[in-house]
Amino acid sequence: MAANKPSIPKGTRDFAPEIMLRRNYIFNAIREVFQKYAYLPIETPAMENLSTLMGKYGEEGDKLLFKILNSGDWLKNIRHANVQEADAAQTAPKVSEKGLRYDLTVPFARFVVQNRNDLVFPFKRYQIQPVWRADRPQRGRYREFYQCDADVIGSTSLLNEAELVQIIDEVFEKLQLRVEVKINNRKILAGIAEYIGALNRMTDITVAIDKLDKIGIDKVKEELLQRGLSGQQIELLQPVLDLSGSFHEKIASLSNILKDSETGLKGISEIKKLFAYVDAMNVHCAYELDLTLARGLNYYTGAIFEVKALDAEMGSICGGGRYDDLTGIFGLKDMSGVGISFGADRIYDVMEQLKLFPETGEGATQLMFVNFGEKEEAYCLPFLSEIRKAGINAEIFPDAAKMKKQMNYANKRNIPFVVIAGEEEINQQKLTLKDMRKGEQLKCSIAELIQKILA
Amino acid sequence: MAANKPSIPKGTRDFAPEIMLRRNYIFNAIREVFQKYAYLPIETPAMENLSTLMGKYGEEGDKLLFKILNSGDWLKNIRHANVQEADAAQTAPKVSEKGLRYDLTVPFARFVVQNRNDLVFPFKRYQIQPVWRADRPQRGRYREFYQCDADVIGSTSLLNEAELVQIIDEVFEKLQLRVEVKINNRKILAGIAEYIGALNRMTDITVAIDKLDKIGIDKVKEELLQRGLSGQQIELLQPVLDLSGSFHEKIASLSNILKDSETGLKGISEIKKLFAYVDAMNVHCAYELDLTLARGLNYYTGAIFEVKALDAEMGSICGGGRYDDLTGIFGLKDMSGVGISFGADRIYDVMEQLKLFPETGEGATQLMFVNFGEKEEAYCLPFLSEIRKAGINAEIFPDAAKMKKQMNYANKRNIPFVVIAGEEEINQQKLTLKDMRKGEQLKCSIAELIQKILA
Repeated sequence: MAANKPSIPKGTRDFAPEIMLRRNYIFNAIREVFQKYAYLPIETPAMENLSTLMGKYGEEGDKLLFKILNSGDWLKNIRHANVQEADAAQTAPKVSEKGLRYDLTVPFARFVVQNRNDLVFPFKRYQIQPVWRADRPQRGRYREFYQCDADVIGSTSLLNEAELVQIIDEVFEKLQLRVEVKINNRKILAGIAEYIGALNRMTDITVAIDKLDKIGIDKVKEELLQRGLSGQQIELLQPVLDLSGSFHEKIASLSNILKDSETGLKGISEIKKLFAYVDAMNVHCAYELDLTLARGLNYYTGAIFEVKALDAEMGSICGGGRYDDLTGIFGLKDMSGVGISFGADRIYDVMEQLKLFPETGEGATQLMFVNFGEKEEAYCLPFLSEIRKAGINAEIFPDAAKMKKQMNYANKRNIPFVVIAGEEEINQQKLTLKDMRKGEQLKCSIAELIQKILA
Repeated sequence: MAANKPSIPKGTRDFAPEIMLRRNYIFNAIREVFQKYAYLPIETPAMENLSTLMGKYGEEGDKLLFKILNSGDWLKNIRHANVQEADAAQTAPKVSEKGLRYDLTVPFARFVVQNRNDLVFPFKRYQIQPVWRADRPQRGRYREFYQCDADVIGSTSLLNEAELVQIIDEVFEKLQLRVEVKINNRKILAGIAEYIGALNRMTDITVAIDKLDKIGIDKVKEELLQRGLSGQQIELLQPVLDLSGSFHEKIASLSNILKDSETGLKGISEIKKLFAYVDAMNVHCAYELDLTLARGLNYYTGAIFEVKALDAEMGSICGGGRYDDLTGIFGLKDMSGVGISFGADRIYDVMEQLKLFPETGEGATQLMFVNFGEKEEAYCLPFLSEIRKAGINAEIFPDAAKMKKQMNYANKRNIPFVVIAGEEEINQQKLTLKDMRKGEQLKCSIAELIQKILA
């Protein structure tokens, strides 16, 4: 038996009920806020054509796609090939046409282009679905994990960016997680690249700056040198990264530095407008302009966001930004969009660490009737129906098992209330309600019982 | 462009917002009822090891599994094989170790066995997740679809069966879908097989009887002959399938017919107890003993259920039954369980046909502010926040686009209320609320507006 014990693939997880209730608490909070801001749900298939996915995540990404073996005679295209010398990556397209989605962004872009005649723009959608990556599994990195994305496409208004900050604020307010939102603008970064005379090195600069938090300024400088920037250029960059003071002080200095860059000044004007919006919105969370925020993904072209938990050591738990040409990869030009993505797994870990989950998860069972046998069961069942009608999640132990077994079940399932009804209760037409946390018990009518639990 | 228009794999679907809101209406109803009956959620990975899946769904099922190509050098195990003459099915395990789940039942059995030391029994779980089958796509049959299962394992009490009927009743009551639950018991079918002297033909008999609804009695008889039953045996079977009258009349006749079959009598005793439970539960839906209900799956050993919509032509929209040895395939014996599965796609189709979806889906947007420009927007934004705080899903059009474009957006998105606030409203510190369905409009304060929408 031990040898045959079934298992699941590396990097994947089962979620037991107590974990699911907590995960759903996070998903529900995110979903409710998305909907409150008029984002509507879509779902796309787990499988996409490989032609949709390949080439969208870089060479490394292509390798990390899970590919589906063609159905039927999958060998037919390689039956006469020289398999002995074949390259696995190059041969894969001959036996596989479909792959599992790697993120929600590319499927979203594909969805928008494919359905563009049926959609009304600006199109605001949210999507909460798993994605799959054949990454080397390690602590906190899984091969199957959920993404929770909200995007609006077909509007350049900065009000969209501002509302995304409001959404971030409201989600974490709901979860009682203290966070800070870091905001920057890719046009400002482009302006800075222009200022140091390295406009064509924009990607190198963002990739390097993006690591500032993790590896520190010296390593970033090293990397910039390696990536071909001159010492002089790096020297010019330093004071920009060092800019401090209030938002307005930073903006004033920056306006001066970038006075000759049209793109840079556009970025400054955008970020001023965005901050004016957010300032007026009275959000609860901290937010600040962070000129060292770059974000690696190179489709971003405007505002970029990143959210960190204030009370825990953890990378970004939410991030996003504006992209001007995401659907361009599928042939639909001039569709500017902006979006954010919540990292549910990391949020879960932070909330677990800070003990922020409510004691009883949404959807948990609140009450159990002990089962003493046929007669008592018949007495209890109508009450059980009444309790459920009142919206209380409840059950009766299905067999007249030993009391100890039944109480053990209630305990392990973390059920806060247990009802005991034997001879005495039947004679008095009452029920005994036991509060499992306080250890107190109380003999009462069904109406009193319901009132007590709903209180 | 037309030639490059992106697409999705055959048999899969995108779900646009209006569809998703309706699907979520169904999923939420099912989820809420499951939870009310103390079933708790679990999730298992989309990918399972092929060793978990293969051989569990028959030879045909093995072919319908979507297999994942191994990562990295997937060719390594066939590089020196003679691919030219290789059989695709036999070679697949050499390039693929994982497959997508085919249903939720086998992963559930695997989950229970794998986690048996951490679970408390009876273990009641529900699971709402997609499954994948490489079936030939056709109308109403998809390669990716959701299953909604509830199972309790580790209890033989018939109260579980009775509560599953209550769950079915409550779900369809919530969805306002009139249904009939057909109930039978595999032990009765075994008794009948024994009675006609064909106990070893149990599977043939159930598979054939299961088609009675679709192909009629004559074709079933033909099939039984083909499957090796004698004309005499089929003659003996006929009056059993023809049994009519009330539950008690059927049971009386059957008790007489099966008087020499221990298994048959056990089945009769079980079904009497189950009906006694359900009779006492005052369910809304129709339910009846249907001796011709067989259900094809051969792991069922006790009660079996099937649900049909009364007002639409559609196959079974929910079904299930008791199994005594589901976890046996993974080495854990003597774990009796019983479960049901709701077919969300078919329920959707029936509800669509009968126009049972509420006009505004849960999570839909209820209100839109028209955007007239900077000044008006600044006037509206604090009101928008207040409206959202009141729990109303709302938005403001993000740009000061032409009125016609904005109203068209609201119309296409099916938003029931639009707020118009221009110079006049600003001067009077009021808002104009337009009811898009009635065509009426009303100038009012923010408090009045919120009250009207929540009414």
